Amino acid sequence: MKHTQINFAEKLALFSELWTPKVIAQMNDYQFKLVKLKGDFVWHDHKDTDETFIVLKGSLRIDFRDGFVNIGAGEMYVVPKGVEHKPYAEQQAEVLLIEPRGVINTGDGDVSEHTASNDIWI
Amino acid sequence: MKHTQINFAEKLALFSELWTPKVIAQMNDYQFKLVKLKGDFVWHDHKDTDETFIVLKGSLRIDFRDGFVNIGAGEMYVVPKGVEHKPYAEQQAEVLLIEPRGVINTGDGDVSEHTASNDIWI
Repeated sequence: MKHTQINFAEKLALFSELWTPKVIAQMNDYQFKLVKLKGDFVWHDHKDTDETFIVLKGSLRIDFRDGFVNIGAGEMYVVPKGVEHKPYAEQQAEVLLIEPRGVINTGDGDVSEHTASNDIWI
Repeated sequence: MKHTQINFAEKLALFSELWTPKVIAQMNDYQFKLVKLKGDFVWHDHKDTDETFIVLKGSLRIDFRDGFVNIGAGEMYVVPKGVEHKPYAEQQAEVLLIEPRGVINTGDGDVSEHTASNDIWI
């Protein structure tokens, strides 16, 4: 059996679209997704699950209804389930998301133009 | 509510022991653990869960019964459940582990001198 590591930089070089998470690995029923962010996203929440953000490059701000958090490269944050949040990146940021397979990027409400295709592997 | 990011370097500065994973965050029932590795660990497996290694600094080799994988900084690997493996680091490496809460570092067999205390938060 061949065992192959996953290189974040190599995977990030494979796409340029913003706000479209790409799956690079799965652990049990959780997926690891790379995403490039710039500008403002939409307010949303995930009713049934926490969501992890690990910033690989750049800096990300997540706004909450009661505050915000800045996450830089080499930092992480876990958004608790059911908590409304809105990611924002002034400059382009590269982020590793970890969440259960099947989570929709815009939350549990209606789909919108911001809703990305799910389970897209690179 | 105060929202605070988690900085890997700051957390890594809080301990120096090898092979003793420290919990820094939890997502649902999964934990994020920082660990410093050097030298050889013991062969073990986790019967019920995959285990994720993300290398933050240095380089890690994981031996399998049928091969090995080298994981450098900026790379990750998911060890499938039930697969025997033995981590090894020639120079000290700093690693982020992700696995369900309650996983024992030496696997599901008998505890040994290599078995670390579980659920230790920093």
